[in-house]
Amino acid sequence: MKKDNVISILSKNMKELRVKANLTQEELSFRSGLHRNYISDTERGTRNISIKAVEKIAKGLEVPVENLFSNNND
Amino acid sequence: MKKDNVISILSKNMKELRVKANLTQEELSFRSGLHRNYISDTERGTRNISIKAVEKIAKGLEVPVENLFSNNND
Repeated sequence: MKKDNVISILSKNMKELRVKANLTQEELSFRSGLHRNYISDTERGTRNISIKAVEKIAKGLEVPVENLFSNNND
Repeated sequence: MKKDNVISILSKNMKELRVKANLTQEELSFRSGLHRNYISDTERGTRNISIKAVEKIAKGLEVPVENLFSNNND
């Protein structure tokens, strides 16, 4: 499975950061102002979202946008 | 003028990295497989592009995607 593409990287980081912040998908949905299904799809890597949506997720997670694209862990 | 949003950050980094790589917008367009107007609009900060498009630009510039979202310079 190809795991070095941008959608996989975002999906992995987003889930890790959400769990680290002790948030459910529902809580992140509320904080970011995005629909719960949107959060869920993005975390499963099934959406090619816009950079404005990424910015909303980053704000919800209280991290800089670039952290969501970091590929340091593998 | 608000300059800390994701579109402004991407726009600024993209232009800096393209100039540093000694590429014209046309050359970056060719390398990334995106239309020249698309490159030009993104560099001017007038488009809310998808993360897959950002990935293509990063490949064209030969940098990691996260570098396009770095906000270290100001």
